[in-house]
Amino acid sequence: MSDGSSRSTVVGGGGRKPITAADVAAQTGGRLVGDPAVVIRGVAPLDRAAPDELGFLSHRRYAEWFATTRAGVVIVGESLANATAPACTLVFVEKPADAMLGVLAMFRREEPRVTGVHPRAVLADDVVVGDGVSVEAGAVVADGVVLGDRCWIGANATIGAGTRIGADARVHPNASVHAWCEIGDRVVIHSGASIGREGFGYVPTERGIARIPHIGRCVLEHDVDIGANSCIDRGSVDDTIIGAGTKIDNLVHVAHNVRIGRMCLIASGVGIAGSTRIGDGVQFGGQAGINGHITIGSRATIAGQAGVFGDVPAGETWSGYPARPHREQLRAAAALVRLGRLIRPLERLLSREDAS
Amino acid sequence: MSDGSSRSTVVGGGGRKPITAADVAAQTGGRLVGDPAVVIRGVAPLDRAAPDELGFLSHRRYAEWFATTRAGVVIVGESLANATAPACTLVFVEKPADAMLGVLAMFRREEPRVTGVHPRAVLADDVVVGDGVSVEAGAVVADGVVLGDRCWIGANATIGAGTRIGADARVHPNASVHAWCEIGDRVVIHSGASIGREGFGYVPTERGIARIPHIGRCVLEHDVDIGANSCIDRGSVDDTIIGAGTKIDNLVHVAHNVRIGRMCLIASGVGIAGSTRIGDGVQFGGQAGINGHITIGSRATIAGQAGVFGDVPAGETWSGYPARPHREQLRAAAALVRLGRLIRPLERLLSREDAS
Amino acid sequence: MSDGSSRSTVVGGGGRKPITAADVAAQTGGRLVGDPAVVIRGVAPLDRAAPDELGFLSHRRYAEWFATTRAGVVIVGESLANATAPACTLVFVEKPADAMLGVLAMFRREEPRVTGVHPRAVLADDVVVGDGVSVEAGAVVADGVVLGDRCWIGANATIGAGTRIGADARVHPNASVHAWCEIGDRVVIHSGASIGREGFGYVPTERGIARIPHIGRCVLEHDVDIGANSCIDRGSVDDTIIGAGTKIDNLVHVAHNVRIGRMCLIASGVGIAGSTRIGDGVQFGGQAGINGHITIGSRATIAGQAGVFGDVPAGETWSGYPARPHREQLRAAAALVRLGRLIRPLERLLSREDAS
Repeated sequence: MSDGSSRSTVVGGGGRKPITAADVAAQTGGRLVGDPAVVIRGVAPLDRAAPDELGFLSHRRYAEWFATTRAGVVIVGESLANATAPACTLVFVEKPADAMLGVLAMFRREEPRVTGVHPRAVLADDVVVGDGVSVEAGAVVADGVVLGDRCWIGANATIGAGTRIGADARVHPNASVHAWCEIGDRVVIHSGASIGREGFGYVPTERGIARIPHIGRCVLEHDVDIGANSCIDRGSVDDTIIGAGTKIDNLVHVAHNVRIGRMCLIASGVGIAGSTRIGDGVQFGGQAGINGHITIGSRATIAGQAGVFGDVPAGETWSGYPARPHREQLRAAAALVRLGRLIRPLERLLSREDAS
Repeated sequence: MSDGSSRSTVVGGGGRKPITAADVAAQTGGRLVGDPAVVIRGVAPLDRAAPDELGFLSHRRYAEWFATTRAGVVIVGESLANATAPACTLVFVEKPADAMLGVLAMFRREEPRVTGVHPRAVLADDVVVGDGVSVEAGAVVADGVVLGDRCWIGANATIGAGTRIGADARVHPNASVHAWCEIGDRVVIHSGASIGREGFGYVPTERGIARIPHIGRCVLEHDVDIGANSCIDRGSVDDTIIGAGTKIDNLVHVAHNVRIGRMCLIASGVGIAGSTRIGDGVQFGGQAGINGHITIGSRATIAGQAGVFGDVPAGETWSGYPARPHREQLRAAAALVRLGRLIRPLERLLSREDAS
Repeated sequence: MSDGSSRSTVVGGGGRKPITAADVAAQTGGRLVGDPAVVIRGVAPLDRAAPDELGFLSHRRYAEWFATTRAGVVIVGESLANATAPACTLVFVEKPADAMLGVLAMFRREEPRVTGVHPRAVLADDVVVGDGVSVEAGAVVADGVVLGDRCWIGANATIGAGTRIGADARVHPNASVHAWCEIGDRVVIHSGASIGREGFGYVPTERGIARIPHIGRCVLEHDVDIGANSCIDRGSVDDTIIGAGTKIDNLVHVAHNVRIGRMCLIASGVGIAGSTRIGDGVQFGGQAGINGHITIGSRATIAGQAGVFGDVPAGETWSGYPARPHREQLRAAAALVRLGRLIRPLERLLSREDAS
């Protein structure tokens, strides 16, 4: 058990053999300066790395930690080559993030996976099970489900009737995928996510509030990720569709009939109301709220906590409440701060004007 | 698998027989203009509907799509009768939303339901099981639970000791209903929701932070809906009560001792802090935050993302942070935009005044 | 079933014997004024308490309810001794919240707990099970897990490979604890929480968006509480650590590599982006959003719905969007309201100045 004061390093999986600085240079194609024989056993932030660990400098913000790090080896972006360097082995690379990806993968411990259906999983009689599928204990898979090749259904996850799960997809423990969803290849659905429930649609009638029957599907195209406890509702009169390659963080809400394009990034806590359409490559900061029945153009950026009420043109950056182009928002925010200092003399001036 | 470019229509359940425009007019009591024999097999938005599909015009916003739709039949509100109409069969109705409800229900595919307790569900010995109850695989029902007639407990849902589930209620997969809750008739609890956990209550004492013992219940009255992954905490010194007919969307937080009246609508992402009291028919926009120990009067409307710190009188609409009557908020927001243009001449003027 | 109109009181567990006002005074060490023999059977808010119930006055805000309460006994803070008192038995105490804790505990009904591993739980072969452990039906515990003494794993919860659960910890139903987490003693993880999933980290590469391999752990130190459906992601290049005694409410998001100090209080709906560091004793109001890669100093207070973009010094209170010191924020907000009244005369004045 770590307590706050102890050193807490990230180490690779047990049994992995240590690697050398030369291995790092070979893996990344980088330019090595220093001792190629230095041995590393893990990765750590520059300010906490030990002599047998690898550090990583990708941004000038961390130059101070770089100068004083105890790391045995540091990967450094070529553009930061003039930063004050510590007396350790350096590996210079063009793209430090890409380089780090490869090195991290060398240390990553794979979760144990058993192929086949666990005897304590529950599959209906007519489930189609692809090759190399894993279904963990407690998972419940309903009638008519198709499990694509090599997909992995986690412990206690549930898959509703008629849903299709793509090849190499993963549904994490305790996630709920409802009936008649279409889940693409390589999709990842994290723990506790709710996919394809009937959405929040009601109509006041003479006999009280009636639920709107939902006859649309919920479609997650290939390579979509859905974060833990996020909710993607099925469509009412339309499908809800998340476009290929779009990545959604934890605790995000996507309402019925929403269509999201390809390769969007949606940070935690975002809410998107019903029937809104979102283009390709749109990025959402955390906790942004998007109104229903509007359109967000491709490659737009929505800042964190923004409250978006109307259409956002393609490629623009909007922020604030109500959301406006970010430049206008900054000007208004700056004016407000200056106003705090002006308001009293201003009131005095205006009352003199009134009096005169 | 749908990809972004393919046509993606909503179709009814397999095996349903197609219906005609005359059937639609009969179901809705509408006025038919055009060919009563046109056959439809599904419902779709106006801009994507095919000749064998039904469209729907309820708002002038979609008049342009209406004019060019390929739909075989369109339901149109009488108030929109002067919109430029396409060359298809039209069914005019007074209340298009009500009419659509009936038609959607004709196409809705019912999820398969098996009556009885699945052999892989786990029921404690002293559970009272009503008539026609369904308990799916993996559900765990604890001591002293009462399951009302025809209620439906989903796969891997859990029901804590002593909880009563009303008649015709539905608890979706992976939802957690804790001990000693009162769940009314026809209540729907969606996947992953947490009902009746002990709330976030702590008191600093001389021996550290102590948890407040929660002795209140969590009560969901008849016809309440709770969205996916929403959390309704039990009471500490009082009950937490959600009034009859209130509908709550996904990812909503209701803290201990909160009392919500009847027929409220609470959109996704709303948070309501402890001991606040909310009247009947209150509507909350998405992501609104409500302070603890305050009162929101009946039929009030709280705008999305509002931050409400004090009491809101009945019937008023409040918005913004800190929340104020919506009209004041709009005026302040407009003033702020105008200020952005004035601040520099204003500073010049005031410095001249100072100098003079 | 309670309906909105019926009286709905909190009562203690069935079979608990009633207590007297004298018992209350003895338990709390308070000063009794009135009849020590009055019998109480439960606790209720002052405005709804019956003659056989105990009320509680800790704040002047409720003085009006106090004056007219029907409660049989009321615990009153000494500092409120001059409030108009009802004709019932009073127990005056220095610290009413502490006193109430003790009394509530007398009435609290313990959830039934069975020691041992339920036959319908699924444990891998090599799980280490401490003394007095409870594992409920449907829980799934993977390879290499260590379950500390007296820990309690709820129904349908999942524990990933290699995770260590501390002594006296509790994992509630349907929670998902992923692989290789470190969970301290007396930690409480509420229903539906996701602990230690791989976080939201992607890098654009020439072959599309790549997931960042996460090799950090997720560490919850002793006495941490995690609310229902909250998400604490594991680290990518660092560990994610929640410091001892920190309490987190429902629906909170903590991203990869975040380090939170000891004894912090984090209200519902807060989101903390990646690699941010938070000191000890920091308090977050509901729905606050915290940027990544920043530092919040110890004992700082972040107001509800604040949007924090940069570092916050120790001990300061910040609020608003973008967050600033609370005093500045209040001044700006007040100026904005006054501006709403000034903007028109101001525009007139400035246009006259321009003309002159």
